[in-house]
Amino acid sequence: MLTKAEAGTDIASLMAEIGAKARAASGPLAVASAERKHAALVAMAEALIRRKDEILAANAIDLANAEEAGLTPAMLDRLTLDDARVRAMAGGVWAIAELKNPVGEVIAEWDRPNGLQIERVRTPIGVIGVIYESRPNVTADAGALCLKSGNAVILRGGSDSAQSTAVIHAALIEGLKAAGLPEDAIQIVPVTDRAAVGEMLKGLEGNIDVIIPRGGKSLVARVQSEARVPVFAHLEGLCHLYIDGSADLAMARRIAVNAKMRRTGICGAAETLLVDRAVASTHLVPILEDLCDAGCEIRGSDEVRALFAGAKPVSEEDWSTEYLDAIISVALVEGVGGAIGHINRYSSHHTEAIVAEDEKAVERFFNEIDSAILLHNASTQFADGGEFGMGAEIGIATGKMHARGPVGVEQLTSFKYRVRGNGQTRP
Amino acid sequence: MLTKAEAGTDIASLMAEIGAKARAASGPLAVASAERKHAALVAMAEALIRRKDEILAANAIDLANAEEAGLTPAMLDRLTLDDARVRAMAGGVWAIAELKNPVGEVIAEWDRPNGLQIERVRTPIGVIGVIYESRPNVTADAGALCLKSGNAVILRGGSDSAQSTAVIHAALIEGLKAAGLPEDAIQIVPVTDRAAVGEMLKGLEGNIDVIIPRGGKSLVARVQSEARVPVFAHLEGLCHLYIDGSADLAMARRIAVNAKMRRTGICGAAETLLVDRAVASTHLVPILEDLCDAGCEIRGSDEVRALFAGAKPVSEEDWSTEYLDAIISVALVEGVGGAIGHINRYSSHHTEAIVAEDEKAVERFFNEIDSAILLHNASTQFADGGEFGMGAEIGIATGKMHARGPVGVEQLTSFKYRVRGNGQTRP
Repeated sequence: MLTKAEAGTDIASLMAEIGAKARAASGPLAVASAERKHAALVAMAEALIRRKDEILAANAIDLANAEEAGLTPAMLDRLTLDDARVRAMAGGVWAIAELKNPVGEVIAEWDRPNGLQIERVRTPIGVIGVIYESRPNVTADAGALCLKSGNAVILRGGSDSAQSTAVIHAALIEGLKAAGLPEDAIQIVPVTDRAAVGEMLKGLEGNIDVIIPRGGKSLVARVQSEARVPVFAHLEGLCHLYIDGSADLAMARRIAVNAKMRRTGICGAAETLLVDRAVASTHLVPILEDLCDAGCEIRGSDEVRALFAGAKPVSEEDWSTEYLDAIISVALVEGVGGAIGHINRYSSHHTEAIVAEDEKAVERFFNEIDSAILLHNASTQFADGGEFGMGAEIGIATGKMHARGPVGVEQLTSFKYRVRGNGQTRP
Repeated sequence: MLTKAEAGTDIASLMAEIGAKARAASGPLAVASAERKHAALVAMAEALIRRKDEILAANAIDLANAEEAGLTPAMLDRLTLDDARVRAMAGGVWAIAELKNPVGEVIAEWDRPNGLQIERVRTPIGVIGVIYESRPNVTADAGALCLKSGNAVILRGGSDSAQSTAVIHAALIEGLKAAGLPEDAIQIVPVTDRAAVGEMLKGLEGNIDVIIPRGGKSLVARVQSEARVPVFAHLEGLCHLYIDGSADLAMARRIAVNAKMRRTGICGAAETLLVDRAVASTHLVPILEDLCDAGCEIRGSDEVRALFAGAKPVSEEDWSTEYLDAIISVALVEGVGGAIGHINRYSSHHTEAIVAEDEKAVERFFNEIDSAILLHNASTQFADGGEFGMGAEIGIATGKMHARGPVGVEQLTSFKYRVRGNGQTRP
């Protein structure tokens, strides 16, 4: 990893060269066999395990630098690797190795009256750019997912995790070499200069097809506003949990505590609880007591505070706030219609859940809310590619173009049409 | 249709209002029943037929203005409507009415070991912006396709077709009203000021989700370079036809003439002919003679000219030129590998065809070329949503994100996940 001064080079030309190398690698990658990609991924996982001590030593340097730089405890936690986390990283790569090869999969086929046989088959997208912050495991996850989907990838990690990332990257390169795949399939941007990100957002002269930002709101917002290429991203997960009048109370209590408190810092954590006014007298207080007992701060509307003295007042701003913390905003609503109105007004279109026994309420909730993931009688914390059975995810998209919800190997593909005839000309 | 002066208004606020109205209409549209959308489309087709004379009278005014403004014969032809073209326009709307409703279709479903049932279902995208030039029929096609897919649409037609477009639009509004759907579902930008296009490209404050340009290369290039929202477009169709050494000569001759000469001005017309050097002595001359007989100008490499005296010399620039005319560039190549190399270098990633009996050559052609549509033993002129059985298309996308190839009602949708549980919390 070079700093700008060490590199002594022009960032734009350096990045252009990285882009050109990635594009060149994307050709052989697109036609690489399932077996070859599988072999590379297995070799990567093995190399990660073999280099575990080296990774942890590099991570210790990153952590020492980060403490000196005064990173917050939450940032330090994201940066920290230990034995179990390195094993989990390798396990993730193994799991991706075992996924079905998406490239070449026939996703639709039909015949035309004139005898033309049409197939729509999955193809790689080409070159993916991933811009992330301090989590070193993103290096392995993103590298493996892009390889499985036949894409070259340009990784731009945070400077905080530079040492850890370099060793993890070396392990991935070992895997590529072992399987005879081009090393440029997975490149790391070797400078910490922020101008490198600017070059990626401009698309490296057409050599980046899509950019995936992984990190905090300010990173994602910058990428979304400046990128001249498509972006798969979610700015935030302002997830709602609605308890319908028909809800089973015991289930509602379990789900509310899990949706809010299992992990408060993830995008699938619930931030707002909506309770049907019809069951305010029976359901509201037990649910809020459970949340309080679990250590959650309650911010409620006047109606809520009249029923539950432990609630602080909620402000208009709270309804649009992703706390990522042990805080929840609470309102009473007029049935499922009221919940839909509130959610469509404030939601970030990520994930919303309803607890209800009334199928009609569920259908309305499912039909009339335009969010990537809607859940019935289940916790919002299931909003995750692994939990969806996609093996792994590179992120969750809240945009509606191309990918939506968890972005796994299928979402990292495009498609093309193969049409077979026997001499047809168009009349 | 108002000019800027007549409107006497600020274009930015006018366009912002149009965007807000479209977004408001997209809500009821997204949940409109299949029956209601069908009824609206049938009523639109009927209104187009009923208003035929009115449409033709308006078109006559457009044509008179266009002649005065000195439009080329090709542009005048695109602008011209007659009895048959109005009937075809109505027929297109009827055909779209009869397509399956894409909204709500379950496109994938699976269960998880913990009992969660996951469905991926189609949803509308939201608001589509269509920017087009002189073809008045785009108004009806785009309006009908967007309605069928549950999207609101903002149409910005060329000033040349303003009178025709206004009457066609009135017929579409009649259909919306008849079915009780919001009139703002299909809006026309009522000013000819080019600043209106600039506002659309900025996304109307988040109220346009995708822009589709329909028209010449300069329009598409402007949209692609300036748009701050996703674009479905093709800049050009530089389509190749490759005759393999294993090709049936009679079939190759028929397909070559059709691919080039059936209609030379469409994006699926072949622009370059590649012939396997192995059959240069047997296949090249008969194919070029057929093309000459059909009125095509041949531009060949030195090798080609040595075998076929009627060919003019080809320049490097020719390989990258979309003629949209009765001209074809011709080269000999070293088998399918040579063809793939040439195509991957010069293609616009739209459509390529191979004529061959050797299945191995076909497989390589299908696997190693990264274009939206690949055809075997069939004419490149089949590159069309109607020919693909999609009922109608709003264009052909050569980008790889979201839509690729013909853009029909399915490509105008996104999706969301519906997850059903029975009380699951995440461990």
